[in-house]
Amino acid sequence: MKWPAVFDRYRSAIDTELGLVFADRQSPLYDMMRYHLGWIEEKGNLRESLAGKALRPTLCLLACEAINRDYNRALPAAAAIELVHNFSLIHDDIQDDDRERRHRHTVWSIWGKPQAINAGTAMHILASLALSRLSNHNIPVTQQLHVRRLIDESSLKLIEGQYLDIDYESRFDINVRDYINMIEKKTAALITCSLETGVLLGGDDNQLIKSFRTVGRNLGLIFQIKDDILGIWGNKAKTGKPLGSDIRRRKKTLPVIYALDKGKETQRKKLEDMYGNGLLNDNDVATFLTILESVHAQQYAQKTAEMYCRKAIEAIDKLPILLSAKHEMKEVAYFLLERSF
Amino acid sequence: MKWPAVFDRYRSAIDTELGLVFADRQSPLYDMMRYHLGWIEEKGNLRESLAGKALRPTLCLLACEAINRDYNRALPAAAAIELVHNFSLIHDDIQDDDRERRHRHTVWSIWGKPQAINAGTAMHILASLALSRLSNHNIPVTQQLHVRRLIDESSLKLIEGQYLDIDYESRFDINVRDYINMIEKKTAALITCSLETGVLLGGDDNQLIKSFRTVGRNLGLIFQIKDDILGIWGNKAKTGKPLGSDIRRRKKTLPVIYALDKGKETQRKKLEDMYGNGLLNDNDVATFLTILESVHAQQYAQKTAEMYCRKAIEAIDKLPILLSAKHEMKEVAYFLLERSF
Repeated sequence: MKWPAVFDRYRSAIDTELGLVFADRQSPLYDMMRYHLGWIEEKGNLRESLAGKALRPTLCLLACEAINRDYNRALPAAAAIELVHNFSLIHDDIQDDDRERRHRHTVWSIWGKPQAINAGTAMHILASLALSRLSNHNIPVTQQLHVRRLIDESSLKLIEGQYLDIDYESRFDINVRDYINMIEKKTAALITCSLETGVLLGGDDNQLIKSFRTVGRNLGLIFQIKDDILGIWGNKAKTGKPLGSDIRRRKKTLPVIYALDKGKETQRKKLEDMYGNGLLNDNDVATFLTILESVHAQQYAQKTAEMYCRKAIEAIDKLPILLSAKHEMKEVAYFLLERSF
Repeated sequence: MKWPAVFDRYRSAIDTELGLVFADRQSPLYDMMRYHLGWIEEKGNLRESLAGKALRPTLCLLACEAINRDYNRALPAAAAIELVHNFSLIHDDIQDDDRERRHRHTVWSIWGKPQAINAGTAMHILASLALSRLSNHNIPVTQQLHVRRLIDESSLKLIEGQYLDIDYESRFDINVRDYINMIEKKTAALITCSLETGVLLGGDDNQLIKSFRTVGRNLGLIFQIKDDILGIWGNKAKTGKPLGSDIRRRKKTLPVIYALDKGKETQRKKLEDMYGNGLLNDNDVATFLTILESVHAQQYAQKTAEMYCRKAIEAIDKLPILLSAKHEMKEVAYFLLERSF
């Protein structure tokens, strides 16, 4: 697995832009967000930030640069999108009762759920305010309004997907198609929006936006399916999640849906029983994993992700951009497929 | 108490505008919001909507009309502000564990807290999308961006106030000044924003916006202090809240803060004990009420609200608008002071 150089290229520009959004915001409300973003510790002392991937802002800037060269004009949008992503993580941790993320306590596990709800929603509003800085780059106001609309619509899709994800927890009639519909909203919508926004700010060409949309959708699907695999079989030291983490959370991720569909009647019954009743102990998780293995659920999920990766590569090849830019986008696609964290 | 006619004048225009925001939104996510807004029942059947006051959109349209006559141009902003208000109610009910609002089950008590978090945040995003319709009224795009900024900043203040409100629950060092600071954010900010936005869309005169801001702040303070009084001594049939409701929720509202400050040492100790320990039973609430009465906490709160009402009237008198418009704004101020629901 190769770490794409493009993840490093924009990193400091993204961090600077995000910092500007928080400048002069004094309430402890913002400190919860600064904590979540990894800038400070629980008590407020500064922290050597372990930079995450910043996948979405990177895609936004990469798309802008691929067609225009000046990625700076897209920085406010890149920051806004990263904030939308992080708002959803703060709320997701509350909704899933997760006490840990990225090897740290989640916001709600420190400040309580009521205040974490505040921190998450306020972060989405900061995303909107981050877009005000588009004016500093002389982006025409109609284009600014277009970007806002794109980000708002994608945020709504993200929440619609989140709605389905929670809804599926208590249902056993979910098939692969339902699942793809859910992750298209929950994950692919914002990743697609990152590319679209970058293109829009780079050149505002409708046909081009459409082509990038296909790339975004496929990258989003790879990302989430790989996330599902890591959520069950990931290495705790790398992902920060224990083995079978998503099983304990009763998530209807792709490997589980596949096993419910392909397993023998007795296996299916067993899976349903375990997901339907109280807390899962270590034995339950082990049994669950055995059933998943017997139907080769991990291989199926990886193959599905590979299929979307091929589609992404195909779509990237068709883009009317420089070969070097295509190469960088492909590196991201392969990374999403092969990553272990 | 006189029901101000202005609450009826814009009602159907506001409802129509809100309806447009939800047109074509199909996910069950939006049905939770439609339920909260009183448009449908839990199972989805249409409901004869019992119109609320719609205070904020009414103030927005009244301000616009007072300086320009064509209030239609402010309708998208009025709808957006009503949605921001309602997003905050959905989240507030989760945060306070309230199972009832306006004589109906709260969203979370039907669909659970995780989904209610989704409904609330998505409603704030719909507010932003509602503003897209300003373009249909030929509002210049720079003015549209200005309105968005105003509403975003007020939303953040609202959440900062909500943060403080929750924070105060576990603290006993809160004085009247802290309290006013909290309700200025939690309540007065969005009410002020309603007037400012109306003026901005009506004429965009900085000096005028500033004068309306003073009116808004005072109306907001009257509204919240009266809400505090009704939260303790309100008539359940009218408010939908049982006697002493805010006491059971351990809220540091103005009457309580006053009693903590003015009560004898033994009374203060008793109040602190009751707020500090587990659930309050009916006896505790009765004792609490007796102490509040002995220091005349209700009278103090009502007098404080009256003081802000006088300030509001003074500020309204100074506005360079028609006498008839001033009269209507004063009617709203008196209504907020005297209301029983």
